[in-house]
Amino acid sequence: MSYESYDKAPPIPPEDYYIVKHEDLLNFVKSVFVKLGVPEEHAYWTADNLVTADLRGISSHGVARLRRYVDGIINGAVKTHPNIKIVKEGPVYALVDGDSGLGQVVGRKAMELAISKAKDGGIGFVTVRMSNHFGISGYYAMMALDHDMIGISMTNARPLVAHTGALGKWIGTNPISLAAPTKVPPPFVLDMATSIVPIGKMEVYSRRGKKAPLGWGIDGQGKLTDDPMIIRKEGALLPLGGLGETYGGHKGYGLAVLVELLTGVLSGAALLKDVGQTEGPGPSNVGHFFMAVNVESFMPIDEFKERMDYMIRTLKSAPLHPDFKRIWIHGEKSYLTTQKRMRDGIPIYKKVMSMMKEVADRVGVEFPWEL
Amino acid sequence: MSYESYDKAPPIPPEDYYIVKHEDLLNFVKSVFVKLGVPEEHAYWTADNLVTADLRGISSHGVARLRRYVDGIINGAVKTHPNIKIVKEGPVYALVDGDSGLGQVVGRKAMELAISKAKDGGIGFVTVRMSNHFGISGYYAMMALDHDMIGISMTNARPLVAHTGALGKWIGTNPISLAAPTKVPPPFVLDMATSIVPIGKMEVYSRRGKKAPLGWGIDGQGKLTDDPMIIRKEGALLPLGGLGETYGGHKGYGLAVLVELLTGVLSGAALLKDVGQTEGPGPSNVGHFFMAVNVESFMPIDEFKERMDYMIRTLKSAPLHPDFKRIWIHGEKSYLTTQKRMRDGIPIYKKVMSMMKEVADRVGVEFPWEL
Repeated sequence: MSYESYDKAPPIPPEDYYIVKHEDLLNFVKSVFVKLGVPEEHAYWTADNLVTADLRGISSHGVARLRRYVDGIINGAVKTHPNIKIVKEGPVYALVDGDSGLGQVVGRKAMELAISKAKDGGIGFVTVRMSNHFGISGYYAMMALDHDMIGISMTNARPLVAHTGALGKWIGTNPISLAAPTKVPPPFVLDMATSIVPIGKMEVYSRRGKKAPLGWGIDGQGKLTDDPMIIRKEGALLPLGGLGETYGGHKGYGLAVLVELLTGVLSGAALLKDVGQTEGPGPSNVGHFFMAVNVESFMPIDEFKERMDYMIRTLKSAPLHPDFKRIWIHGEKSYLTTQKRMRDGIPIYKKVMSMMKEVADRVGVEFPWEL
Repeated sequence: MSYESYDKAPPIPPEDYYIVKHEDLLNFVKSVFVKLGVPEEHAYWTADNLVTADLRGISSHGVARLRRYVDGIINGAVKTHPNIKIVKEGPVYALVDGDSGLGQVVGRKAMELAISKAKDGGIGFVTVRMSNHFGISGYYAMMALDHDMIGISMTNARPLVAHTGALGKWIGTNPISLAAPTKVPPPFVLDMATSIVPIGKMEVYSRRGKKAPLGWGIDGQGKLTDDPMIIRKEGALLPLGGLGETYGGHKGYGLAVLVELLTGVLSGAALLKDVGQTEGPGPSNVGHFFMAVNVESFMPIDEFKERMDYMIRTLKSAPLHPDFKRIWIHGEKSYLTTQKRMRDGIPIYKKVMSMMKEVADRVGVEFPWEL
């Protein structure tokens, strides 16, 4: 089987989607932010983050969220000209205050700081407070790849997950991302929510009127439910490992706390239910964590990449489980999807197109597509 | 309900266990290593690591493994006087070669190095090659607590887990540990295998002739099996998230790769199936990763601890799921178990006592218990 035209999230049913060119999407989104007063470069970063999510097949974190960022700026919860400052700093670490800027702008600046510190010091370790939702976490980890570094990125978020033993939403889907360079593409890119699934999956399932696999979430009384709407409303998502401790739900819960600790506790950001919404009214005070590791401090980059390739090759050489067609490595599906979508265009859900049209009209920028 | 006498792994059935004082156990294990030529202090570290596992209720990683370390030393695979050296170093990072010393000795020295680097530089980041099985990973993360630091520890290991899409054992149970100080004890201590369960659980289940919950592992053909012996022999454990991708098995797999990358790829240690056994014949070349984060570089330690307590208090304040009696935080069960076992003694399985007696006779040290 050829994977040249692989798409990890093909449009189903196709008639519910428009196909748009990624450059057009990027330019449009950028124009919205510029019109709202965001400096040109920052608008580009934000648009690039959102379109990268769509290219990688993570549409829940792509332009579908445009309105929230726009609302945040219009409501004054998100600042277009934040005074992003370093509160504490040493040669290899920093604590950054994002001053309620766009998460994509604060995140990018903080990861750049981590990378520049790692250039000289081997490691860059940056924790961030007073930021906003920063899009896909993997974006920041992947920034390290251009510098032959390992990148790590995490963020806390508004609670959506019931931790082990609890009812209701108490902790975010708190993602962990790590990117590492390889010789043979694609690079290794782990980008995972610490819940079984991110909330975006629930949105996709309820949009399609589909039942969710039993085990992803619970209802208000703590019973497993396959109704994505109940999970979203009165229920909650479950941590990786599921309900209870039998299959390691306490581990997924522990990883979510690990993320909360590095992104929230250590930075002074909001914690758990105190994290606000990007669309306001007040500052959301989201916390992030970024790390860059300069591989050359430990071994020649070529040797590292060869060792990465050897690890990946070995994992892929395993005999195939009868239920599977292929052994994947992390980031590979998104890489193939990006290649296909850069060539063939990005499928955008029709309702998302309408929302973008509304945003365009409201903000006063040209909407480049015919709906 | 009172948790004063809580034990996370009570002896079942009680008649299969002896109850021994932890000091006696520590002194005995230390005497074995001293007799084998291990320097006094290193013997103490190793014994302390093993007995700490038993105190915390993680008997799979405690003195039950004594013979493997003894065999390793006798076979020459593990050196009693390793030349542990720093291969690469900067102010906050180091690459350490453990020269096939005891994992507990190499691990302790490497974590001490990380802590001392974090004292001045804010962060200490140490990756290690040419080590051996180092016992419980949480031990090293917890070393940071005495210094008001966050500690992180990971290790790779011989393959026991079938990654997503694969048949057979291809990657280790690669644990992730993070410890962070709190004002109100216990401290937060996450210490988790990235598989659903560690192999020790399989040993406990097969010893008791019990079936394992379906979902923990597969047989040689990739089918889920509840037979712990089949999982141990021709089958494999499954990553956190389970078989396939539906419940996030690819995330547990990704976390295992993340650990392999930081402990193995970056350090130059053995990878995957190339990791050897502690008991020889050749060097096992296990890789570790340690990190220490000096909290005071980011905020006053009291503020950090109060923020930790607030997070934990909030998580514990959630309404209780009807299937649960209590919401736990990570490290709490092991903390209570340690308190009970320090007071009442440690239950040691009778077969483990016999094994220790054999070791005592073989090595020529006094066995302080009457069997």
